Amino acid sequence: MKKEGISRRQLIVDGAKIITAAALVGAASGVSTSEAYTYPSQFKYKKLDIERVGQITYENYFKRWCCSSVLAGLVEPLKEKVGGAWKDFPIDAYKWAHGGFAGWGALCGTLTGAGIVIGLVTKDTDIAEAMSNDLAFYYSYTELPSFQPDKPIKAEIKHMTIAGTPVCHISVGRWMRAEGVGFLTNERAERCARLSANIAMEAARMLNAWVDGRYTPKHSPLYNVAANGITSQNNCRDCHGQYTPTPRETYETLER
Amino acid sequence: MKKEGISRRQLIVDGAKIITAAALVGAASGVSTSEAYTYPSQFKYKKLDIERVGQITYENYFKRWCCSSVLAGLVEPLKEKVGGAWKDFPIDAYKWAHGGFAGWGALCGTLTGAGIVIGLVTKDTDIAEAMSNDLAFYYSYTELPSFQPDKPIKAEIKHMTIAGTPVCHISVGRWMRAEGVGFLTNERAERCARLSANIAMEAARMLNAWVDGRYTPKHSPLYNVAANGITSQNNCRDCHGQYTPTPRETYETLER
Repeated sequence: MKKEGISRRQLIVDGAKIITAAALVGAASGVSTSEAYTYPSQFKYKKLDIERVGQITYENYFKRWCCSSVLAGLVEPLKEKVGGAWKDFPIDAYKWAHGGFAGWGALCGTLTGAGIVIGLVTKDTDIAEAMSNDLAFYYSYTELPSFQPDKPIKAEIKHMTIAGTPVCHISVGRWMRAEGVGFLTNERAERCARLSANIAMEAARMLNAWVDGRYTPKHSPLYNVAANGITSQNNCRDCHGQYTPTPRETYETLER
Repeated sequence: MKKEGISRRQLIVDGAKIITAAALVGAASGVSTSEAYTYPSQFKYKKLDIERVGQITYENYFKRWCCSSVLAGLVEPLKEKVGGAWKDFPIDAYKWAHGGFAGWGALCGTLTGAGIVIGLVTKDTDIAEAMSNDLAFYYSYTELPSFQPDKPIKAEIKHMTIAGTPVCHISVGRWMRAEGVGFLTNERAERCARLSANIAMEAARMLNAWVDGRYTPKHSPLYNVAANGITSQNNCRDCHGQYTPTPRETYETLER
């Protein structure tokens, strides 16, 4: 269902900059982002107990890995509190998203898991976009994992790190270096389990606010695209080093 | 449902190396990957017309972007041929996966879209893992986009490129440099629309083979993790340059 254009968008964004960014991207890419869409979905949401979401996610990690453990943390309570379509939701059908897509180290699977529930319940492309974007900011710029399980399942761990990115390989590698452990260790599994809990909890916090009519985006959707002239993050030098292209001009001028 | 261990895994993998890789990862991470899981899912599959999948995906891109357009290409025909649970499948509920997660440039959304359908229909974590992995290889090491629409919607484009990665930012940036255009152009949108068609078609090819009992993985799942000692790709120098860590020893020795 097509929505009513820019006035609706203004309700869910937090300033003029985002409208500019979205309009720029929309106009130039041939997709009008002021044409947001609502869509039918059978998946209802009720406010969840944040700590319980975290604990379920944490415990599930060691069997289901990142994406499906976030799904378990959100969906298991929804099966109880809401029922309906959630009862048949196949939590394990998304395990492939682990490790940045079947271990390829791209997008952290926790974000895929959270995005799936966000998309199913919000029924609005603008709101799901804003919430996913906020979650990517939280993931990238928060010291994690901060979740403390009642009783550690695999190991005690010492460090929290700031990923600077939603990319699995960089995020986990940075933490491994801080902790001084390899990937195939109990410590690393423990870190990813706790991180999964943090992401599920943050998603539940946003959805709890949304269902109460209190969700306001913290960050500007599509800001990275508008700022850098390409789908991107704000950690350019992590990969480009001293040869970081000038934002927005590189691929237009081809001068690098 | 827990499956019968290694004998089952041997049926779906193509050699001893993968078993070694999966066993290594499983044993050390505390998750036994020889314990594959099947799960119930209401989503049935019937063989699809590959060209039609491509054309639907291509046409949907300009409204729904990468992830949801791949979903449209696969799900719209399944709504007609299979019906059932597909009839209520909310294609737009996954739009947030576009542009590597809400424009963050991480995992190309086409792979998220394909993974969702693969996971829902195969009902087996091992098969979904192998198929996702094969699709990541196809995405990364095939000259794309090769899909030719009946009639280009946005622009004529000249180039195909090899991404070397399933990461959106690198994949699209490499193509943009070859074509000599910026991100916010009709040419770039046309490229991503055709690429989406290619990925949906390859997923449909694998699923068509699978439903006929003819799917055999081409590549070893979790090979990247075993080879590099971390969730990763095989394009280390793209980001690390001359300071590429030695595979598997860096985070164990912390000597870099």
